[in-house]
Amino acid sequence: MRVERWDVFELSFQGPREGNPFVEQWLCGQFHNRNETVQVQGFYDGEGVYRLRFMPSFEGSYTYQTSGSFPQAESAGSFLVTPAGAGNHGPVRVANGHHFAYEDGTPYYPVGSTCYAWVHQADALRQRTLETLSKGYFNKLRFCVFPKHYIHNLKDPVSFPYEGTPVDASGLTEEDVAYSLEFPGNRWDFTRFQPEHFRRLDRAILQLRDLGIEADLIAMHPYDRWGFSAMDRAADDLYWNYLIARFSAYRNLWWSLANEYDLMQAKTLEDWEHYAALLCEKDPVRHLRSVHNCVEFYDYSRPWVTHCSMQRQDLYRHVEYTDAYRVRYGKPVVWDEIAYEGNLDMGWGNISGQELTRRFWEASLRGGYAGHGETYLDPENDLLWWSHGGELRGESPARLRFLHRILCQTPGLGLRRGEGSFDEVVGVPDAPLYRDGYEIHYYGFGRPSFRTFQKEAGARYRAEVIDTWNMTVEDAGVHAGRFRIPLPGREYMAIRLVREA
Amino acid sequence: MRVERWDVFELSFQGPREGNPFVEQWLCGQFHNRNETVQVQGFYDGEGVYRLRFMPSFEGSYTYQTSGSFPQAESAGSFLVTPAGAGNHGPVRVANGHHFAYEDGTPYYPVGSTCYAWVHQADALRQRTLETLSKGYFNKLRFCVFPKHYIHNLKDPVSFPYEGTPVDASGLTEEDVAYSLEFPGNRWDFTRFQPEHFRRLDRAILQLRDLGIEADLIAMHPYDRWGFSAMDRAADDLYWNYLIARFSAYRNLWWSLANEYDLMQAKTLEDWEHYAALLCEKDPVRHLRSVHNCVEFYDYSRPWVTHCSMQRQDLYRHVEYTDAYRVRYGKPVVWDEIAYEGNLDMGWGNISGQELTRRFWEASLRGGYAGHGETYLDPENDLLWWSHGGELRGESPARLRFLHRILCQTPGLGLRRGEGSFDEVVGVPDAPLYRDGYEIHYYGFGRPSFRTFQKEAGARYRAEVIDTWNMTVEDAGVHAGRFRIPLPGREYMAIRLVREA
Repeated sequence: MRVERWDVFELSFQGPREGNPFVEQWLCGQFHNRNETVQVQGFYDGEGVYRLRFMPSFEGSYTYQTSGSFPQAESAGSFLVTPAGAGNHGPVRVANGHHFAYEDGTPYYPVGSTCYAWVHQADALRQRTLETLSKGYFNKLRFCVFPKHYIHNLKDPVSFPYEGTPVDASGLTEEDVAYSLEFPGNRWDFTRFQPEHFRRLDRAILQLRDLGIEADLIAMHPYDRWGFSAMDRAADDLYWNYLIARFSAYRNLWWSLANEYDLMQAKTLEDWEHYAALLCEKDPVRHLRSVHNCVEFYDYSRPWVTHCSMQRQDLYRHVEYTDAYRVRYGKPVVWDEIAYEGNLDMGWGNISGQELTRRFWEASLRGGYAGHGETYLDPENDLLWWSHGGELRGESPARLRFLHRILCQTPGLGLRRGEGSFDEVVGVPDAPLYRDGYEIHYYGFGRPSFRTFQKEAGARYRAEVIDTWNMTVEDAGVHAGRFRIPLPGREYMAIRLVREA
Repeated sequence: MRVERWDVFELSFQGPREGNPFVEQWLCGQFHNRNETVQVQGFYDGEGVYRLRFMPSFEGSYTYQTSGSFPQAESAGSFLVTPAGAGNHGPVRVANGHHFAYEDGTPYYPVGSTCYAWVHQADALRQRTLETLSKGYFNKLRFCVFPKHYIHNLKDPVSFPYEGTPVDASGLTEEDVAYSLEFPGNRWDFTRFQPEHFRRLDRAILQLRDLGIEADLIAMHPYDRWGFSAMDRAADDLYWNYLIARFSAYRNLWWSLANEYDLMQAKTLEDWEHYAALLCEKDPVRHLRSVHNCVEFYDYSRPWVTHCSMQRQDLYRHVEYTDAYRVRYGKPVVWDEIAYEGNLDMGWGNISGQELTRRFWEASLRGGYAGHGETYLDPENDLLWWSHGGELRGESPARLRFLHRILCQTPGLGLRRGEGSFDEVVGVPDAPLYRDGYEIHYYGFGRPSFRTFQKEAGARYRAEVIDTWNMTVEDAGVHAGRFRIPLPGREYMAIRLVREA
């Protein structure tokens, strides 16, 4: 048997169907090669099938032994791990303190989007979402395991995570959306998963992987009419263990404990710390872990948090605090929600493509990262990218792809914010990043007609004018000493200076 | 003799020319009618002429007595004060805690601009400035007594405030602009004013008055190559007394102790408090008083400060703190500098007309006021409205005039911010002001396609959609209970709701 490095090595077993296999049976395995020995939990996938998934982190020969609560679980064997193929760089890790790289060392600059409930839509719509994603606008996608109940999200999902029957959704209106801890009309067995719901997630994660997109999986969220946000500790633990066993072997997985954790009134800080401890203990790949706020930031300095997953706390200044949060938390700063391009009635969903793109550039050039969402009203089908996926209509995605292209040109691994150059006192919205003779000065909503630079004696710099909206990079000559770069007096311009060898 | 209420009653006297009349002679008067008794200082206007100016605050007969250090100063007489004519509403006062009204009770909604050095320009340019101002874009103008030395301001002014000779300005370049306490090459007699310099200011203040524009006179500033920013206490006192004696009788005068006081390294907080005490003691009209910051706000809670005269402290969030500063200082909040429409290299001078207009609306609907400036580069003549006056090229002035028209439609005196309606938590940039059934909801850079309202039972509201950029007000029907107002999904829209009687 052969498997590519960082791919999934999967073993399946026939086992008992009677009783409740989800709680009455267990399966585990140990995988060994010269560089690692890894314990992995298996899971029940319905219809008498048990699975064990493992992601090898090294090339070469592996051996394994499995065991479990039923006789067929006992097995042993070996397999060969071949070099990673094209496009396979391994899981994303934190790099240089505030940045990311794949495990093979390739820098990873997240430019994410959000389609919370795309997995819960019918297959045709899912396929259209994947076609949109194949255009390369984004390399991270946030989405939920549990279905979503919220404005523009009143229909039942195509599958539910548990056996049982949901509350009747007919007759629901947008006015019925409210946060509550009451869930009348539902009948669920929180000890019996519906494997098909999770198979859809399997397929989604793998489809994203094949598009080069990280799956930022949101395990919990408050937009609920079924009670999945208020299960008891035993049900929660069963759920988390199932997620870990089922999904950890996917190299493109990120764990988002929750979206807007602080709206989940049934959960306490102790709960979040408990789930995080389960992940730290049981996820053999040690995928990235965070939790996303609505109002109050989580304490991102907690050791289990690998990166900040932030929602803006202020309408007017947010990504512009990236520098401060880097210092405060000492981790990568990812702004997963900074308002969406769209035209909703709500302020979180109606900014322009220009403004969203500006926020991405501000975040990026201050050494952080940002996330996209799109919320254009669709009177005909009520399908919004932010929840359902489908097609994009906005102006920002192409610009975000352009930003990603620029970020990928950064020499070295990760970006470093220039100290002392960011001059807010005299009111210059000039957010430079530099790294060893490589600088980008971004002027945001400012419209300078020129900018003057003073560089060190003996150095020559190639200058380029970047139009972040029109997506052009124009040569502006080679300069030394004190020099002036003309600009067109429009918003959203940047100047790149690269020291010549 | 007759004079209109709140106009200038002026007496002139021939007196000694020998010696230094500015410091060796004095003149004062007492004006009396049944409602007030006022002490006024006179001043020397050169060529043996001494003047005494008085603004009567009441109608009816006044008597006066004058005296001084020379025999001709002794006089007495009477005059009649007639009702104020059309357009004469008296000085502007603080009203309703956070707002302004003229002394006759007419609300005054400041929409200011800045032409720091327009008075120091040649007459032809001054005339063009007045022609521009006659278009009614602004009703307040900030400008300086002392000439200005700064980028785009290297030429000598047409007059100097003191006798003497200035440093040679030929060969100065933009790179020579720096804050310094050294002023080599100047020879001034700080005890001898050049009256013509101040006569130009007299004319300017009166010309503004006749255009309905308040003169926000900046007594001191740091943009200096002549040493006027670093005179000693005796010279400062002579200067302040001269300003007070000369200008206090103009009803449209506001005192701005300084622009960017915190850049004036030769001055201490004690100096500012001392100048303010002089004003409180000697200005018989008690004109509005403030001082304008660069970085650090002055302590606007000081009792002599009538209103906050603020420069934004942050690039991204500033006028949006208006609510907070109203609470903190308990006074009118006037944002006299929030970046200028233009295309300078510097961030304080290169925002768009849209963004400047948005800042005005945010400030206004949060119960404060804002100020305009324009800094478009002029390669041919290097004339920028912000300093020199002349013509306006920007897109914001017409929109600010439109805003002023809307503000003037507010019922009652002054605006009140709605408590509890301003919802930043869910991210709605909805800054309503309301006052007894009168509300404006402004959506700034948000682009809602509709907004929903829930009004009290039994009330009917007329709705209007205001396009703050295209300057239109469109009827949106009469509504009651829960209702939805459609919007075009563009930036810079507002909804006005007026309860029907």
